[in-house]
Amino acid sequence: MDPYVIQMNSNSNLPSVLDVHVNLGGRSSVPGKMKGRKARWSVRPSDMSNKTFNPIRAIVDSMKVKPNPNKTMIALSIGDPTVFGNLPTDPEVTQAMKDALDSGKYNGYAPSIGYLSSREDIASYYHRPEAPLEAKDVILTSGCSQAIELCLAVLANPGQNILVPRPGFSLYRTLAESMGIEVKLYNLLPEKSWEIDLKQLESLIDEKTACLIVNNPSNPCGSVYSKSHLQKILAVAARQCVPILADEIYGDMVFSGSKFEPLATLSSNVPVLSCGGLAKRWLVPGWRLGWILIHDRRDIFGNEIRDGLVKLSQRILGPCTIVQGALKSILHRTPQDFYHNTLSFLKSNVDLCYDALAAIPGLRPVRPSGAMYLMCFEYPNFFRVVITVPTVMMLEACSRIQEFCELHYHCTEGSQEECDK
Amino acid sequence: MDPYVIQMNSNSNLPSVLDVHVNLGGRSSVPGKMKGRKARWSVRPSDMSNKTFNPIRAIVDSMKVKPNPNKTMIALSIGDPTVFGNLPTDPEVTQAMKDALDSGKYNGYAPSIGYLSSREDIASYYHRPEAPLEAKDVILTSGCSQAIELCLAVLANPGQNILVPRPGFSLYRTLAESMGIEVKLYNLLPEKSWEIDLKQLESLIDEKTACLIVNNPSNPCGSVYSKSHLQKILAVAARQCVPILADEIYGDMVFSGSKFEPLATLSSNVPVLSCGGLAKRWLVPGWRLGWILIHDRRDIFGNEIRDGLVKLSQRILGPCTIVQGALKSILHRTPQDFYHNTLSFLKSNVDLCYDALAAIPGLRPVRPSGAMYLMCFEYPNFFRVVITVPTVMMLEACSRIQEFCELHYHCTEGSQEECDK
Repeated sequence: MDPYVIQMNSNSNLPSVLDVHVNLGGRSSVPGKMKGRKARWSVRPSDMSNKTFNPIRAIVDSMKVKPNPNKTMIALSIGDPTVFGNLPTDPEVTQAMKDALDSGKYNGYAPSIGYLSSREDIASYYHRPEAPLEAKDVILTSGCSQAIELCLAVLANPGQNILVPRPGFSLYRTLAESMGIEVKLYNLLPEKSWEIDLKQLESLIDEKTACLIVNNPSNPCGSVYSKSHLQKILAVAARQCVPILADEIYGDMVFSGSKFEPLATLSSNVPVLSCGGLAKRWLVPGWRLGWILIHDRRDIFGNEIRDGLVKLSQRILGPCTIVQGALKSILHRTPQDFYHNTLSFLKSNVDLCYDALAAIPGLRPVRPSGAMYLMCFEYPNFFRVVITVPTVMMLEACSRIQEFCELHYHCTEGSQEECDK
Repeated sequence: MDPYVIQMNSNSNLPSVLDVHVNLGGRSSVPGKMKGRKARWSVRPSDMSNKTFNPIRAIVDSMKVKPNPNKTMIALSIGDPTVFGNLPTDPEVTQAMKDALDSGKYNGYAPSIGYLSSREDIASYYHRPEAPLEAKDVILTSGCSQAIELCLAVLANPGQNILVPRPGFSLYRTLAESMGIEVKLYNLLPEKSWEIDLKQLESLIDEKTACLIVNNPSNPCGSVYSKSHLQKILAVAARQCVPILADEIYGDMVFSGSKFEPLATLSSNVPVLSCGGLAKRWLVPGWRLGWILIHDRRDIFGNEIRDGLVKLSQRILGPCTIVQGALKSILHRTPQDFYHNTLSFLKSNVDLCYDALAAIPGLRPVRPSGAMYLMCFEYPNFFRVVITVPTVMMLEACSRIQEFCELHYHCTEGSQEECDK
């Protein structure tokens, strides 16, 4: 029997689905896997997929809480400013997308690192005299998540390690561990507005350290580092010759009284890959437009790291071209009022939330200076509050937290001050 | 000297850039890498990025051809139907995007595998009685490239191998080799309209074979396999217990007289991951919306492979939400005329191109039945012609090819028939 000839039941009333039954008898001349053993189905997921673990998903997907029938849920857990509809993006941003659609110019493939013109737009928008940028220093990505993924993928091999803040954004660990890269956690100090414990950070560095991730402004802490603290971080990196992945997706999202300093503007010798995107500042996280800004004025990354990023970007070919086409208008036509109003709202919510939580026995909130979060803890346990929810819900949530704490919090020794509150 | 204290030049006329010079003398108590050796910068790209090789880019980027001042270039190399502006997408497709923008409902994060409603839309659109689909069987991706990447990443470990068509789409190799997966090439037979050499295919299979990639309709061949040939391919997979990655991005793009058979409709026992997207049929490759359809009626993939795909999708969080929000209207409101007109144009161009090239000494084109390409060869050398260019340019290109061949082609022994043409 020729194993490459299929005999079909010609009854055309049967569905045209073929269950293959093949003669596996001794005279078969079929080469390959069949020799010596009977093939069996055994399809297992790869080690990489087994190692890919998203702790937020693990909590959210397995959370089995019976809803209180008397209260609607107020979700304070997801860092998505669009969930409640109170923070729409600006009409100019939407119009920019429509213009890009109408032009008909942005339907085809872009280069995998993004259109040259879009990269020029980003370069000139984020150019600083102390940290100059040209189009060649910009790589557009499918969201800031892919920006971070490409940076880790180009800098680290399996078996190397990266330095990640604790508390910090869980994606760093998810990505690193899926690639077999070890995660070493450095501590942030709540009593110092979440500054980095520099000594402990430096003690973690060894010859296998591929990069240091600095997230400023911080998710989940809401902290914004001073110039002087950033300079100390850079000094550690310079001394230890460790490049920095600066996750600056919340750049410019700082409240009045604070100032965001792009890390790369404070050093001319430490190579920095700065990751950002439209997600947070323009309130469109679903659109998946992110970027990497390559700062390498001492040519330490050199062409090799640049080429490596380009090659890795060719795996999935970059972000949606309509968003790329809209980029110029999004950057230049969004009115200042839009940014101002977003930050005013966040700041006002933060103040309300901070005051409400600070008055609750057992909770010690840390006042945030930027981003969209407030961290609250009774050391060593933390929780994060997303402050983008409508104010009425924010207050209702705080009052529920108060009710819960009053029911369940008991003074422990050494916390008399708390108990007196 | 405390290494964590930075001394700055307080001259405020200087740019606020810090070149860090740190005392590395013997009394330093700084821990970590410094001990025992002086740290030096050495940032090298990862093995993964070194292994990521895109052969198209390698040719295109290094091509140094002086343009002929008397002729404008006609690019027949890039499989992007939008390049020349003669194949715009349908106005309903653009309108669907505008409606999604105006709704304001699609700016936030979607689940990393896509909105449930969008996955339902795809499931019902591609559902067949012989190959049923529900939302849980659909994963939305950032283009068909990411669909293929996720499938390879979940099915294969480094050191395993996959079976890839020759000639075939270069991304399979690019992705596999970047992940340390070996590529084994199976032959397509030009004299049999690019059917697979099944015997040679089966001889390549061993215990390390993680999957078989079947690309139908084919890029670059333009072939469309018959039901009977697809059944023979499935018989090999069933006999050898090898799952199939069906790259069906050109599904339904077949010319009159041919019929596209989704691979999964022809077998109930071989597990199939079918990859597709909006790119080609709707003429919007830049929008980066692709999908994986999971066909696993015998539960061979099981929950493990499904969970693996979900976990891997969490690395970059899926495609642009505006395109996801537009999906229902794109699938259901695009008029039949649009698909029909695209295919009529392609078919007419194919016929012109085939006839022109078949008359040229030294060239033997193979008439395509679908997709957007025509393969032409003087065995064993091939070239691919993209047939989406405007007809006038198509004819001009053929006449240039003719001119070139007449100048450079010389009969070799045994090709008398060719020489007599």
